[in-house]
Formats: sequence, structure tokens, C-alpha cells
Amino acid sequence: VTSLLPAARLDELACLVDERGLRTDADALEQFGRDWTRAHTPAPGAVVLPASIEEVQAIVRWAREHRVAIVPSGGRSGLSAGAVACAGELVLALDRLNTISDFNATDRTVRCGAGVITAQLQAFAEEQGLFYPVDFASSGSSQIGGNIATNAGGIKVIRYGMTRDWVAGLKVVTGAGELLDLNRGLIKNNAGYDLRHLMIGSEGTLGIIVEALITLQAPPGARAVMVLGTPDMAAVMEVLAAFRDRVTLEAFEFFSEEALAKVVEHQGLPRPFETQSAYYALLEFDTPDEEAQAAALACFEHCVEAGWVEDGVLSQSLQQAQALWRLREDISETISRWTPYKNDISTTVSRVPALLAEVEEVVSANYPDFEIIWFGHIGDGNVHLNVLKPEAMAMDEFQRRCGEVSEGVFDAVARHGGSISAEHGVGLLKKPYLRYSRSAAEIALMAQIKRVFDPDGIMNPGKLLDA
Amino acid sequence: VTSLLPAARLDELACLVDERGLRTDADALEQFGRDWTRAHTPAPGAVVLPASIEEVQAIVRWAREHRVAIVPSGGRSGLSAGAVACAGELVLALDRLNTISDFNATDRTVRCGAGVITAQLQAFAEEQGLFYPVDFASSGSSQIGGNIATNAGGIKVIRYGMTRDWVAGLKVVTGAGELLDLNRGLIKNNAGYDLRHLMIGSEGTLGIIVEALITLQAPPGARAVMVLGTPDMAAVMEVLAAFRDRVTLEAFEFFSEEALAKVVEHQGLPRPFETQSAYYALLEFDTPDEEAQAAALACFEHCVEAGWVEDGVLSQSLQQAQALWRLREDISETISRWTPYKNDISTTVSRVPALLAEVEEVVSANYPDFEIIWFGHIGDGNVHLNVLKPEAMAMDEFQRRCGEVSEGVFDAVARHGGSISAEHGVGLLKKPYLRYSRSAAEIALMAQIKRVFDPDGIMNPGKLLDA
Repeated sequence: VTSLLPAARLDELACLVDERGLRTDADALEQFGRDWTRAHTPAPGAVVLPASIEEVQAIVRWAREHRVAIVPSGGRSGLSAGAVACAGELVLALDRLNTISDFNATDRTVRCGAGVITAQLQAFAEEQGLFYPVDFASSGSSQIGGNIATNAGGIKVIRYGMTRDWVAGLKVVTGAGELLDLNRGLIKNNAGYDLRHLMIGSEGTLGIIVEALITLQAPPGARAVMVLGTPDMAAVMEVLAAFRDRVTLEAFEFFSEEALAKVVEHQGLPRPFETQSAYYALLEFDTPDEEAQAAALACFEHCVEAGWVEDGVLSQSLQQAQALWRLREDISETISRWTPYKNDISTTVSRVPALLAEVEEVVSANYPDFEIIWFGHIGDGNVHLNVLKPEAMAMDEFQRRCGEVSEGVFDAVARHGGSISAEHGVGLLKKPYLRYSRSAAEIALMAQIKRVFDPDGIMNPGKLLDA
Repeated sequence: VTSLLPAARLDELACLVDERGLRTDADALEQFGRDWTRAHTPAPGAVVLPASIEEVQAIVRWAREHRVAIVPSGGRSGLSAGAVACAGELVLALDRLNTISDFNATDRTVRCGAGVITAQLQAFAEEQGLFYPVDFASSGSSQIGGNIATNAGGIKVIRYGMTRDWVAGLKVVTGAGELLDLNRGLIKNNAGYDLRHLMIGSEGTLGIIVEALITLQAPPGARAVMVLGTPDMAAVMEVLAAFRDRVTLEAFEFFSEEALAKVVEHQGLPRPFETQSAYYALLEFDTPDEEAQAAALACFEHCVEAGWVEDGVLSQSLQQAQALWRLREDISETISRWTPYKNDISTTVSRVPALLAEVEEVVSANYPDFEIIWFGHIGDGNVHLNVLKPEAMAMDEFQRRCGEVSEGVFDAVARHGGSISAEHGVGLLKKPYLRYSRSAAEIALMAQIKRVFDPDGIMNPGKLLDA
């Protein structure tokens, strides 16, 4: 596979798309060559912006003939360098396949081009009196195709699952240039292997997702948000168990005092209450009636009496609920000034406290000069470990030492049967660590599956797998 | 791949299992060689009943060395001849891997050997105050491994999804004899291709499911059952839409007057009400409070006023609810005396009326002497078309003509983007028709994927795929 795109090749490529379809200017190469990670220097050979599925097929067939590496590109808000093009690849951006169509009120499905922005779909659903529940920080720029390629998660997984659970049909152009029309919106379909699920989360290494049929649902009713201060992680888990049994949880998030302190200081937000606790839980739950409200308050009191909760606050309005959410949602942006080294790990919910304790020990024993910010989707067993760069340390040195930290962290993850990437995907950044979550046999099978769909190895080469 | 098992080979095989592990008596060959279909004569070469995962691996490696075809075998309640052994194959029955263990109350997961009976798991969940929601007619004999291999559906899919949605982890022995430990109970895991979902529904052609981590959930609360008489299929769909928006549906089934008449006559059940309608809808819905009851009754009245419902009945007790369910659940057993030719087709919910009308036209135009019984899971777009054998017609002639009917039926299914097998799987019976639901490219990709997991073609050869 070559990544060189000489002028003659670019001329051929230009014939496959319209006048807006090919860009080689420095701005485009810079913009389309990177995602939200900053570890690689963007260096694509060209950017192609097809306007139809047929153009995608023509480009893939052309790339296959000339052994040109393709990087499929959505909103590029990924955090694992799955969409970076740093070796002269052809970036194939789905931005122009951005049509929402064929809304079906009976089936509650809607057809989305791969380039539809998540927020665009959310707004469309709302206009129909319905709801698209997958939601995360990058909803304003992430695209549906990219969401599916990385099986995006987010803040409502405990209630609504991952992106995977909302894909009723999928059109994919394989690395061989074939268009697959998978599942076509069927609720029940046991006619052979479910290739749709194989494509979801495959990070552009098997084919290019060009269109999806997305399921919508009835919107949730009234909800309230609670933030609770807890003395330790064990208490957070007790609180989760107590509330899960008594209310319908829409979200159950957590963050550490270190995370809260940073957000309060740098975003100018008030603390939720005066008491400082080691960890905070943020709960969103349904309040269809006064009974549900009462059950939540009784549960809060039960948690206080049991010593699991030190203080708490309950939103009394939508505005207050949104303000409380900011304490959690603004963490990522706030800590970005320390160029954090991000880990996105998971285990089963019951093993989270043990995993966190082991990871803390690894970090504090070996890297006492590093500041750690914990937050995440604790209701799903998914925590984000952020290591902040000490101001005095050079970036190279920081990256190198974080790589060492990762080995220790992933050792602990492996001991707990966990995942080295709960929701961010593998891309380039997590590829060296895949063996901590997947056996050698599994990795070998994945490489062979890639060759089935992408016989010439042109689809996002080097991402996820070395093959 | 050979299916001959000479005595010397059987001696080798006997060394891999304990004294209860190998059976070659006629009873065993007959019993383990068939499923609920009756189109093939059982003729396995031997039956092996491993007592551990290690024994399964040893058997697969031995079979691979000697190119012996293996038919994985669960409760054998399948309806597509996916588990029949009619060509001297080695049946590998999972009956002895029937342990339930490692229940985790926090994660709400439990470990099941592949041979655990569905009803055994349902009872175990109930003992823990929890609920395993996948339910169907063969719950008393079907095994979890087989359920997963066929992605079993059933009567509660509209609320709880398919078997796929309850598999948090999966241990599989591939056709190469490798043990894969997939997903390990993680809610969030985006570290590479989801091979778990590829295995689910692969009908034993990629590997043998030996163990699963199953998710349980809180049990549903109070529910009620309604049976409604409707003048036509369009009205059934209106009723579905009306109720779906106003109550929480646990099930939405339908059956025709012809189906009801047979059940009433042969099972000695009373009609739900005196009015005869063309079609009946059976709804089960949550009744947490009086408000929900009132909403359902108001919806019923709305449907009557709109002309969609001609008569109806609402259960007043659990006993009455169960009696109403029998009108639907006893259909299969009742019509079995006419050795029906079964089709298990689906399309999107919105296209069901058009599909049914086209199928009816195909059948009545070409085969006016055939009696048709319609029933199914209409809330999921899944209908069962049963063609009854005219008494005077010979079995061979009936099968041949039904094969012709199928071509016409599947033509209509293909026009509506549907599935030739919504929940029964493909096996041997539906294999000739796979092309109506899957493109040539998809079938070729599936065959290549099979070769990745089963390089010597020993895993359930001839089922689902010709390769």
C-alpha cells in the first residue's frame, strides 16, 4: 500500500468527484489530517469529499487498483487517533453525505448519511416528537458514521446503551469496493452472520460506513439530577446499587474532588455544596410522579444514614439540572490545559473499586509527581484516568513516562478482565496495548477478518491492527 | 471432511472423554441426530458428551486432525434443521455443561454452561429476585448455548430484544480448537472487533459456544393481557401504533381467525369473545397503577370508535391472562397434526400489511387448495406463515409444492427488504433461500469468515452456507 499521491494520480482522482470533491490545500490537509488527539503531525496526501455513495465506491475501487491507503473521516472528534492521517494517506471525508431522509413514524427509524452531525440527528428526532439518546461531549461535531465506526458511548449508556444499540441498518463500502446493505431496519433477522455488528466499532479498518438506518424512541419524561458527596469509591458503588433498585437511572457518573476543584476554579462554577468529599456521584433519574421523587429522597436519606453520602443536592429546575451537569461535563475541557494523558478503561461494575485502587497504587508508587484526575461513567464500569503533565516537565518526557504508566495501568485492567478502551476505540494510540484486552488468538482472527473485507489492506491501515 | 467414524477412531475419541462421554447406541443416534424438524433422517456417526470445556477443545482438535465433521447440539428444538446430523457426523452435545455459577448481584450477571436449559436459567433468576426475559415455546428443553447460536427470539422481543441483547460474555471453541473468552461481562468495550456478536446467530458454523455470561434484570411489575378482534391487518397495525404510544408493551402478537378456530376446536379453549374477526391482536402491557389501566381502556375505546377493533377482552387476573396467552401459544402445537410447512419471515413493522397481502395473493392464486395459518410477533415485524397439508396429498408432493410456494413468498420478502428467517435461523431448510435476504457479496464474505474460524470446514458443515 502506497501513501504517495503524485500529480497524475490526483488528476485521476479529480475525475471521480465534482469540483468541490478534492482538496489538496494546506488548510484542508491540516484540518482533515487530525482528530482531537495531538500526538501525530497531520500529513495526508489529499482530501476527497464524495457527494454520493457511488462516488465513495468509485474512489475505493480506484484506491484499490493503485494501492492507495484511505483514512475514512467523520467529525474527527476521536480520542485514539483512529482518524488521523500522518503518512500521506488519502482522507475520505463523509461530510457531504449529510442528508436525513425516509423518516418512518411507524418503525421509528430514519435514514442518515454518514456525515450527519449527531446534534443534527438529535434535533431532527425532537422535531418528530422523538428522541435519539446517544449523547456525548462532541455531539456538535461528531458524525453518525464516525459514531458507528467507533461505537460511541457517552453519558447515557446505563439507560440507553451504546451507538450499536440504535443502528437498525447499515450501508458499508468494503475495502473491495462492494456496497453492503446490512439488516435494512429489521428488528428480527436471523438469516446468517450479523455483519452489521462486525462493522460497528471496526474503526474504518473493514470498510467505509456510508449510511445508517437509526432507531429513535419516545422521549423520556421529567427527570431530576442529584450530586452526592461520598467518602470513598466503595461508597459510590453502594449509592449506585441503592438508587438503581429504587429509581430509573438515566445516568450515573462520578468525579473526584481533584476534578471538581479544577472545574470550580477554572469555569467559575459554584461548588454543589460546601462539604468536600473524596468522590462525587452525579445521578440523573426519571421523576414521572411525586412517588418517584419521594423514593429518590428516601434513598438519599438511607445513603446518608449508612454513611455512604456526606452531603447532596437535588435539582429543582431544568436550569439547576444543567448547572449540575456542567460540574461533570466541563472536566475534560478544563483539564485540557495540562495536556492530560487520557486512559479510558473499564471493567465490570463490581470490580471497579478494586481496579481503581490498584491503578492508584501503580501511579502513586511509581510516579508520585503526577497529578491524577478521575471521572467517568461509573454506572457502566467505565472510568477515565487522566494524568496531568507537571508544568516543569517537557512534553516528550511526559509522554514517555505516561507510556510506562500505561503498562502498569493495563496490567491491572487485564487482571480484572477489563478493557483498555471502553468507548474511545483503539486507533493508533491504544494499538500497542490491545494485547492486554484481547488474546493473541483474537488479534490473529481480527487480522484475518480484516483481510476478508479489505484484501489489499487499503482501509485505515495501521489503525487498531498492525496487519 | 469425512463423516465416517471407524472403530479405531471411536476408540481414540473414547480416550478424550469419561465413560459417559461417548454414545453410539441406536437410541442416542436417533435422539441426538434430529431437531424439531422432520425433513431429514437422523444418522450421526456417534454422539460425544464432553464434561468440560477442555474436553470440548480436545474433541475439536482431534476432529480437526482427522477431518471429522462436528454438529454442535443443544436442546435440538430448532425449526430450521440447524442441529440435525444426517450424514454420519459426530454430534457434540453440550448437555453436561449445565452449571449455573458466579452470580453477581452488583453486575446482575450469571455464568451459564452452554447446556443450561432456558427454564433453569429463568428459575434461577427468579430465585435471585431477578428476571431472564427471553421466553419462547421451547423454554423447557432449549439450551442457552443453542439459544445463542441461533439468537433465539420469542414472545417478548418487542420489550426485551433477542437473546443477543442478554449475552455479556461468551466462551467459544473455534473450529481450530482455540478457546476465545469474548467480552467477559463488560458493558463498555471498544477494543477491537466484537467477535461475540459475530458468534451469536452463527449456528455452530464458526465454533462451539461452551459458556456465556448472561445479564439478568429487575422483574417487570403488574401486567395485563388484552385480546382484540380486528377487521383486517391494517387495523392491527393501527392498534399497535395506538397502544405503543400510550402503554408500555411487553408483547404484541397476532393470529388469524383460522388459527383461533383450530385452537378453540382442538384444545377445548373458549373463544375470547363471541364476535368473529378476521385477525386478533394479543397485547401484554405494564399496569403499574390505575392510571396505566385507565390509559389502556381509553385506548381500547379509541380503537373501537375508529373502527379498528370489533370486540375485546381484558384479563382481570393472572389466571385469565394465562388463559388468553394459550390462544396464541397453543397454535403451533395444535396445527402440528397437519405437518405444516413453516415460514418465519419478517420485514419492517410498517411494511407488514403489504407483505402479508402479497404473500396471501401468491398462495391463493397458485395454491388454492392449501390452507394458510397466520400468526406471529407482529410488533417486531415477524410473522409465521404456516401452510397446512391437505389430508389427501402425499407428503412428498406437499413438500415439493411448498418449495414452489416458498420461492413466491421469498420473492415478496425480498421486495420488502425482509428476512427469510426472522428468528428460526437458516440451518439446512432455509439455506437454498438465503440469497433472497443476503446479497451474493454478503454470502461470499460469510463463507470467507467461516474459513477464518473453521479452516478445515469441520464445524456444522452444510448448515447455513454451502462452503
